[in-house]
Formats: sequence, C-alpha cells, structure tokens
Amino acid sequence: MAGDMSTSASEGFEPPALGEPYLLTPGPLTTAYSVKQAMLRDWGSWDADFRTMTADLRRGLLALIGDARGEYDCVPLQGSGSYCVEAMLGSFVPRDGKVLVLANGAYGLRAAQTMKYLGRAHTLIDKGDYLPPRGDEVGAALDADPSITHVLAIHCETSSGILNPVAEISQATYARGRKLLVDSMSAFGAVPLEVGQIRYEAMVSSANKCIEGVPGFGFVIAKKSELEAAKGNSHSLALDVHAQWATMEKTGQWRFTPPTHVVAAFLAALKMHAAEGGVPARGARYAKNRDVMVDGMRKLGFETLLSDRWLSPIIVTFFCPAHEKFVFSRFYELMKDKGFIIYPGKLTVVDSFRVGCIGRMDEHVMRRVVEAAAASLAEMGVDTAAPPASAIAERAKLAA
Amino acid sequence: MAGDMSTSASEGFEPPALGEPYLLTPGPLTTAYSVKQAMLRDWGSWDADFRTMTADLRRGLLALIGDARGEYDCVPLQGSGSYCVEAMLGSFVPRDGKVLVLANGAYGLRAAQTMKYLGRAHTLIDKGDYLPPRGDEVGAALDADPSITHVLAIHCETSSGILNPVAEISQATYARGRKLLVDSMSAFGAVPLEVGQIRYEAMVSSANKCIEGVPGFGFVIAKKSELEAAKGNSHSLALDVHAQWATMEKTGQWRFTPPTHVVAAFLAALKMHAAEGGVPARGARYAKNRDVMVDGMRKLGFETLLSDRWLSPIIVTFFCPAHEKFVFSRFYELMKDKGFIIYPGKLTVVDSFRVGCIGRMDEHVMRRVVEAAAASLAEMGVDTAAPPASAIAERAKLAA
Repeated sequence: MAGDMSTSASEGFEPPALGEPYLLTPGPLTTAYSVKQAMLRDWGSWDADFRTMTADLRRGLLALIGDARGEYDCVPLQGSGSYCVEAMLGSFVPRDGKVLVLANGAYGLRAAQTMKYLGRAHTLIDKGDYLPPRGDEVGAALDADPSITHVLAIHCETSSGILNPVAEISQATYARGRKLLVDSMSAFGAVPLEVGQIRYEAMVSSANKCIEGVPGFGFVIAKKSELEAAKGNSHSLALDVHAQWATMEKTGQWRFTPPTHVVAAFLAALKMHAAEGGVPARGARYAKNRDVMVDGMRKLGFETLLSDRWLSPIIVTFFCPAHEKFVFSRFYELMKDKGFIIYPGKLTVVDSFRVGCIGRMDEHVMRRVVEAAAASLAEMGVDTAAPPASAIAERAKLAA
Repeated sequence: MAGDMSTSASEGFEPPALGEPYLLTPGPLTTAYSVKQAMLRDWGSWDADFRTMTADLRRGLLALIGDARGEYDCVPLQGSGSYCVEAMLGSFVPRDGKVLVLANGAYGLRAAQTMKYLGRAHTLIDKGDYLPPRGDEVGAALDADPSITHVLAIHCETSSGILNPVAEISQATYARGRKLLVDSMSAFGAVPLEVGQIRYEAMVSSANKCIEGVPGFGFVIAKKSELEAAKGNSHSLALDVHAQWATMEKTGQWRFTPPTHVVAAFLAALKMHAAEGGVPARGARYAKNRDVMVDGMRKLGFETLLSDRWLSPIIVTFFCPAHEKFVFSRFYELMKDKGFIIYPGKLTVVDSFRVGCIGRMDEHVMRRVVEAAAASLAEMGVDTAAPPASAIAERAKLAA
C-alpha cells in the first residue's frame, strides 16, 4: 500500500504537492499525500464496505489506549473537535452533576462556556494564559466543594502549547472519588494516554491532529459503563454520545451521514501511525521536531513562553520580539512566501505567535523552518540576536 | 478547469474510478472525480486563502435562492445535515416558541425528536409513511393553536421520496402570521427554493446532496434579521447558528476547525453546478434520471409507492415484489455486483427499497441500472412481469 510505503525512512517525508506550504499549525495540518489519495472515491454509508471501515476505525483508535481489560469503547462523531468536547460534557455529566473545569487557555475557557450553554453546574479554576493547573489545587477545590462530580482537564492546551499534568490531576480527582474527563484534542496519538497509567472516564480527540488525518470528525473514547449510563443525559440529539454508540453497536452505522471520505483518509492515516511505531514513535518524531525548531529559534533570539519542562511536542508559543520592525502580519506573509504557514498567538497579555510541531514533517523540515525565520527577520531588518532591553523586561515580568 | 470541462455534454459522465460502484443513494452520492481531486492538498484554516474559500462558498450558495434584496445570509456548519436541522431549530425558535412539525417519514419524525431534546414546545402532524401534509390542514392546525410560532416542513422527505408541497404550506403559514423553517436537505440545488417564490425564514441543506459535494458539513440559509434575533436562543455552543454567523462576519473564519478538504471539494462541485446551468439544469437532469429509471423499472413490473404527481426527482421508493423468490438483501448484492449500490426502504408498513436519482449520473447510467435490475431479477428467478395477485392486493390496499 502506498500509505505504508511512504512511512519508510528511506523515502523520507516528501514535500507537500503542488508547492503548497507546510502547515505549522495545530490541525488542520500537513498530511501525507497517500492519506488524501484515500479520498479519491465515494462510499455508500449504508453499505457493508463502509460499515467495515467504521469498525476498523473504532478498533484502531481503541488500540492506542492500552485497554487490556476491554472496558472502553470508541465512538466517532461528526463535526469538529469542539463538538466532541460538548458531546462528552453533555453526555457524561448528569443533569444534576457539577464540573470543575481546569483552564489555562482558550480551550479550557471554551469548555466552561459549553457548560453555560448546557445550563449545568460548573466551577472554574482559571490559571490564566500559561500556568499549569496542579494536582494539589485540584484536590483543594474538590475538598472544598463536595457537589463537584467531574473534573475536566485539557491535556495539551494549544493556546499556549503547554502539556498539562493530567497524571497528577487524575490522581487528585480519583483520590476524592470524582471522575475525570480529558480533552486530549491536540495530544492524543503522540502523548501517551493509556488507561493503565492515567485513569479517566472519557476522553476526546479529533481526526486532524496527531493521527494526521484530515478534519471532519472527532471521537470519544469512554468506559462502556459510562456510555451505558449516559442514556438520557444529552441536551442534543446530534451530540448524544450514548445514542451514537448504541446505534453503532446495533447496526455498525453512524446515526447520520458520516464524512465518508474523511473516514477513509483517517484509516490510511491510522495505518501510517501504526507503521511508524504507534504513539511512542509519533511522539518521538514530534519531540525531535520541537527540539530542533526551538533550539534554532532560540539561537535566532526568539524566546519561548514556557520553560522546557512544560513545552509540549505539539505546538510552541514564542514571544513576538519587542523590536520596532517586527510586525507579525509581515512575518506571517514572509514565512508563507517561503512555504511555511505559522499560527498567530492566543495569549491575552503579550504579543506572541505559535509554531506547530505536528503533521507530516520531520526535523529536516523544521531546520528549514528556522532558516526561513532567519531570512524573514533579515528581510524585516530585525536583529533579534541582540534583543532590545524591553523584550527582556517583558519576559522577566511574565516569569515573575 | 477540469471540473468545468467534465460537465460538457461531449465528455458525458465518466464512470467512477477504480471500478467502484455508482451510489444510487440520497447522499453520500457519486461525485465527479475532479470534485474529489480538489481534496488532494491541505489548507490552513486561519490563512487568508481558506478564508477566501469560505467567502466563495457562502456567496455561491446564496446565489441559488434569488435573494434580490440581499435579505439572507449563508452560514456553513460542521457536521451532518441533521446537525443543521437541530441548529436551525435551536437557534431560530425562541425558548418560549412552539413548532408545528410536519412529518411524513423519518426526517420529519427526527425533527420532532430534536424538539424533545431541546425541551421546547412542539406539536406534530404525522401523515404516516407517504401522504403529503397539505396547506389546508396546516392552516387548520395553526388556527386551532395560536401559541404555535413556527412551522417546520420537509422539502423532499427522502424516506419515501415524496416532494412535499412547501409552497402551499408556506402560504398557509404566513397567512396566519407564523414563520416557516424548511429542511431542504435532499432537494436544495435541484428543486427551486427561491425566496421570491416561496417565503421562509431559514432553510438547511448539506454538502453531499444535490450540489454533489462530499459529506462533512451542512449549511443554513436564513434571513439576516433572524440571524440577528437568534442570539442567546441556542441550547448548544457547537450548534449556535448566531455565534457561527457572527464570527464568520467578523473574522471570515469558522469558529472551530472546518472540514477544509470537504470545503474545497464543495467549491469544485459548486462550479460544476453553475457550469451545468444551476438549479434548473440540475433539476432537469435528475428528473430525466427519474423518468428513465421509473419507466424502465415499471416495465420490469416494479411498482412505485407514490403516484407520479408526488414523485421527486431525488429518490424513488419501489415496493419489493411480493414474489417468494424476491429477497431484498440478495437483490442488493446482485445490484452491487453489477456496479450499483441501491438503498433499503424506510417504510413502516410494507417492504420497499429506494433508488436515488441524484449524483454524478445521467440517463445513460439509469438505463444501465434498469438493465442490472432486470438481470438481477432473472438471476433470482423472479418474474415480475406477471406479479402475483398478492402484490396487486397489497398495492390496492395502500392506495385506498
């Protein structure tokens, strides 16, 4: 199969076709050409061939969580990743439940906003732009409010790129008899989330992140006991995880029209993920991408928002240099001209931008990213090797 | 462009690639190869190039409703068509509103089920499997219940294939000062729904129906005044049409990750739709597909559920012949072996199956469908030219 062959080291990572830019973004991301080629045909969604594809997809995803006891099941759901977060909250949190939402960026805050739409009780620990929610403060919050039934954690908060400490959050949660729900959108498939290591009731991710598929659906992986118990909880027909699961179990079909082509691409991507060596190998490649890119960018004078301890292998936030000639929109266009799409920042306090490490790219590509950044700075007349004092002051202020 | 060229009559309709079967199903359906080829690259969803694509998509769809006064706007939404129905009901029906749902099949009943999830008031006219809801009975129901604020009509009810009389339903609705919402999922793009001809506040359809795109998103077309007024109505963050619209107006972006590849395919499909001659030409091709197919199937002894007056150009329901040797699952496999995927029936009373008329197919393909049906019957040993008396009796009973 073309999909399997193109993962071999000898072939390396072919550049995107047609001179299109690399996407240094946290999904949609650069996917293998063979993944996209899998979309060059049509499938009937009722037909047995497609039902087999759906079964393969569910089985392939379940294989990533090390569920030796067969306690979990996988439920793909049409829509974007945020649809799955809402579906998870609406389906697994009973109407009289209460959620402690752990936020340190846009996606945590979005989960809290979702709870407001649902009209269900919730409380928020908001750590601001980049500080990690720690196990001890989660424990204290749970001790202080016995009515909290669930904790929602963001695995990798892509607005800063921080990898949150879900293991200690899980320990604090279950030590107090509460349940953990994990938004592992941008981390799953590259950062381990094995149920033998980290206890949780349910997690969500989507097709276009670390498995390197194209966007169009997400998925919930949850304990079967939770899937059973979720009946009647959902506020929404479309986002009812129990109903989607029950129909799939009974008929092998999605309840409503599935994104057939996106599913086909995802199956090709899942095969490549396995051929590369699964979660450890995928995570190692992304970590190498990050290390090469961060090292090079730092040599150019760019500073990361986070210290090395909290840097995820998913996406990295850099401060915009406090140099009068640095304008992000111009830097963006110069990078795009050189074949690299970077991502704007999402911090509320200071100007920043982000560079993703995920997608069909390796360290050789990341070296070229650094070269492109150097050339772009030169074209802008920005000398970050000697950053102005204001940048240093800004950085010191945030670290305090 | 390849997409435009392949619509020319001289080229005809090339068969699906790789010997894959034609999909005689109401979406996903057989799409042009050039539509699928548009998915062979990746886009950054934040990038200006993709924002332009989103703007083109919205403009292209709006052009189909003849909105001379610029009163409407188009809001694409991630997910399947049923997500859009739920989004429309949740966004445009105020929390204290009440909906009269007109049902004559699975999709009308699904809309009623959606209202139950929303916990908002509704009442149902259920016409059973195939009878059309008529303007006079809608009027009587509205007269009898002044608390009804909205009417929900299904344009083409694909569970039977009936084309419902939305024009007279619209007249009855607005004559009584109520508002109409239309589920035009399987009809839009082939059956006219111009706002100058049929009054409505909002309608929904999806990418993988008569525009001949691939599945992955749907869209709402609604009066701007309704989009403004929808703020705060939605039960769901993901399905909040007002919020999706407001963000698109402000930033040109989708709120959450869009199905970029599916959008690219849809733009290619929209160009082909225009090149073919828009809604009238698309509708004429499908009507011809239906006429050729129904004529041929009737000559083989198959009987349609509906009289000609109610047959849509979208999909046609046939009774399973009441012949001891006719087994639908076998007929399905024999048809599939010959390159045609048909669709099971959705009637509650009698056994039936459906044959779709939409997708990248013309009358020549439909003639081959009839030939394949004839050959399949022969292989099964079914002689429908002389249907057994039981089939005639069954048909007479339903017509009574």
